[in-house]
Amino acid sequence: MRILSAPNSFKGGLSSPLAAEAIKAGLLRSGLDCRVELMPIADGGDDTMEVLVGKNGRIVEMEVVGPLGEPVMADYGIMADGVTAVIEMARASGLKLLKPEERNPLITTTYGTGQLILAALDAGCTKILVGVGGSATVDGGSGCLKALGGKLLDEDGREIGPGGGPLAEVASIDLSGLDERLSGVSIEVACDVTNPTLGPIGAAAVFGPQKGATPEQVDILEANLKNLFTVAAEQVGVDVRNVERGGAAGALSAGLVAFCGASLRSGIELVLEQLDIDNRLVGVDLVITGEGQIDTQTLGGKGPMGLTEAARKYGIPVVALAGSVGEGEQRMAEAGIKAVLPIWPGGVSLEEAMTDSSRLIEETSCRLGRILAIGR
Amino acid sequence: MRILSAPNSFKGGLSSPLAAEAIKAGLLRSGLDCRVELMPIADGGDDTMEVLVGKNGRIVEMEVVGPLGEPVMADYGIMADGVTAVIEMARASGLKLLKPEERNPLITTTYGTGQLILAALDAGCTKILVGVGGSATVDGGSGCLKALGGKLLDEDGREIGPGGGPLAEVASIDLSGLDERLSGVSIEVACDVTNPTLGPIGAAAVFGPQKGATPEQVDILEANLKNLFTVAAEQVGVDVRNVERGGAAGALSAGLVAFCGASLRSGIELVLEQLDIDNRLVGVDLVITGEGQIDTQTLGGKGPMGLTEAARKYGIPVVALAGSVGEGEQRMAEAGIKAVLPIWPGGVSLEEAMTDSSRLIEETSCRLGRILAIGR
Repeated sequence: MRILSAPNSFKGGLSSPLAAEAIKAGLLRSGLDCRVELMPIADGGDDTMEVLVGKNGRIVEMEVVGPLGEPVMADYGIMADGVTAVIEMARASGLKLLKPEERNPLITTTYGTGQLILAALDAGCTKILVGVGGSATVDGGSGCLKALGGKLLDEDGREIGPGGGPLAEVASIDLSGLDERLSGVSIEVACDVTNPTLGPIGAAAVFGPQKGATPEQVDILEANLKNLFTVAAEQVGVDVRNVERGGAAGALSAGLVAFCGASLRSGIELVLEQLDIDNRLVGVDLVITGEGQIDTQTLGGKGPMGLTEAARKYGIPVVALAGSVGEGEQRMAEAGIKAVLPIWPGGVSLEEAMTDSSRLIEETSCRLGRILAIGR
Repeated sequence: MRILSAPNSFKGGLSSPLAAEAIKAGLLRSGLDCRVELMPIADGGDDTMEVLVGKNGRIVEMEVVGPLGEPVMADYGIMADGVTAVIEMARASGLKLLKPEERNPLITTTYGTGQLILAALDAGCTKILVGVGGSATVDGGSGCLKALGGKLLDEDGREIGPGGGPLAEVASIDLSGLDERLSGVSIEVACDVTNPTLGPIGAAAVFGPQKGATPEQVDILEANLKNLFTVAAEQVGVDVRNVERGGAAGALSAGLVAFCGASLRSGIELVLEQLDIDNRLVGVDLVITGEGQIDTQTLGGKGPMGLTEAARKYGIPVVALAGSVGEGEQRMAEAGIKAVLPIWPGGVSLEEAMTDSSRLIEETSCRLGRILAIGR
C-alpha cells in the first residue's frame, strides 16, 4: 500500500512537516504493509515556506522593518530551482511579531514584506510566491510598495506615513521609482481566504478586528482602503476594489495586484501545483491529510479539501486527521474525505492535546494503519 | 463482511445494548458492505441483566429492602430458558440507590439482594447468576444470608443488626433455617474484580472508601469481615478468607460461597459463556467492542479484553471504541485489540461527550466503516 502523508499544519500544535513525520511514524509502527511518502502541505498561511522550500531549497535570514517599524529578523526561502522565492508575509509583518496590546492596524506596515521581495530580486529570483496569512496589517500593501520604490503622496505631494491610518490622505501614486526588475518577475499570491478587498466581507470588516481594530477603526480602514484603491484605479489603471481574494493580508493582496501586477491564487492550489501534485499522486493508494480543526469551513477550500479534490481526480481515497472535528462530516465524506479521525484520546484538555499533538497524531495514525490492515 | 457489535457499557454514558445499536447504525451509514449482529456484553457490573436476559427473557420488578433498610423498587431477570435468573446486586443494594452523604458501609445491607434470590427461587429458577458491581455494602453477604433464612448470632444468641458494623459480634452461625431450595440450585457469581476477601487488596481496604468508609472504618470493616469468615470457617467448614474474587461487592461474593455454595467466576467469562460466544463468533470477520475508558486496567480482564481473548482463538480481529484511551495501547494491540478508537471529536468537554455518547459512538463507527471500506 502506497500512502502519501500530506497534512496541513495543526495550528498552534504542530507544523505540517512534523505532522507528516508523525503520520509516517504511526503507520510504520502499526504493522501495516505500506510505503509512506511525505508531502506536507500549506495553504498560503503557516508553513508555506518550509513546505515549498523543502529539503533541497534554502532559507535566507535577514533583518527587516517589523509591523511597528522596529527591526525584526525574518526569513524567506528559495526553492530547489534557485529562481523561485517563497515569502510568508507574516514573517516580516505578522501578528505573531506583536504582543496583543500592540495590535493597531492604523499604524502597522507591510514594509518588511517589501524588503523580503527586494531581497529575493537581489538573489536573482524571477518568480516570487507570497503567502498571505496571519498579517498584522490593513495597509493595502502601501508599506510594501514603498519598500519597492513606489510612493503614495498626499495633496501637497508629500509621502504619507506608515499604516492604514494615513491612507485617507493618498491623492496620487508615483510608481516611477518602482524597482525595474519587478517588470520581469512573476508574483503569485497564495491566499488562504477569498474575501474581496472592500465591503462587508472585505479586509477591514472581517479581519480588522482580529488585528486590533475597534468598530470605529474598521470604518476608518474601510474608507481609507477605498480611497487608496480608487486613486489606484484612476491613476494606475488597475481596479482591485472588488477583486476576489483582494482582502487577504489587509489588502496586501490587492496592492500587489494593483502596483506589481501580481496574480491572486488559492493558496492550496498554488502550493499543490508547486509540489507537482499530479506526479506525486501516481501510484498512491491512500492520501492521509489533516489539520487542527476540520469542519464546514474546511469544505470552503482550505488545505485538506484542495488536496482531496486533487486526489479525487484519480479516485484515491483520503483520510483526514483532526485536532477537533466539527460539523459537516457527512458533507466531507461526499466531497471525498472518506473519514475524519479525531486525534484526541479523550480525558485531556485542549491545551494538553495541543502540546502533545505529535504523539497524538502518531497514535492515531498507528490506529488507522491497524484498521487498514484488517481490511486487507 | 460480518461484524459483531459487542460493546461493554460506556459507564455514565450509554448502556451496552444502546452502544451496540449505535455501532451498528454508524457502520450501516458508512457504506461499508457489511452485516452487523448485536451482542452487547457485560462483566457482572452494569447491564449484566439486560445483556443476559436479552429480548427473549423477561424482567420481574418487585419491592425489596434497600441498602439502608428503606423500601426500594428493584428488578431481576429470567433468561429465555425460563430457569436461569440474573440478579444484579446493585439494583437492590447498590451505591446508585444512595446519595453520596448516605454512604455508610457500617450499616448498609445486602438484604434486598437476598430477597431477589428468594424471588428467583419462588419463580422456579434452578440457576442463579449474581452480578456484583457497584455495591454500597461491606457486609460480607450477611444481609443476603438473613433474607435467605440464615442467622448470624452474637455471644448471647441474639441476631446481629444489619451492615458491616455489627459483624464484630458474630459468635455463631445458624443455617438451619436456610431456604431448602438453595441446595438444589447452582449460584454463580459474576465478579468484575479479582480482589480477595481480606487483606490489603481485599473488600474493605480497596472498595471501602468508595462506599463511604473513613480510614478508621476500613480497619473496623476489615476486622469484622475477618471475624465473620473465621467463624464461618470454623462452624460451616468453608474458608473463604483468602479466596480470589471473594472481595467483590463488599465480600457478598465470599458470603455466597461460604453460606450458599456459590462459585465465583470472572464476570465477562460467565457472561460470554451464557451468550454462547463460540457459536456467535462463527463466520464473524471483525468484532467491535468498546467501553467508557480503555487503558491498562482493561488488560486486567474486564469486558473487552475477555471478548478479545475469545475472538483471538478464532483469529478474529477486534477493534475497540473508547470514551477515553489511556496508557497501554501497544500492549492491547499485542493482546489482540487491533486498534482502540477514541470517540471524542475534540473541542467538547467530558460532560458533553458523556451526554452525547450515542451520537459519538455512531460517528466513530461510521468513520471506522469508511476506513475498512478503503482497505477492501
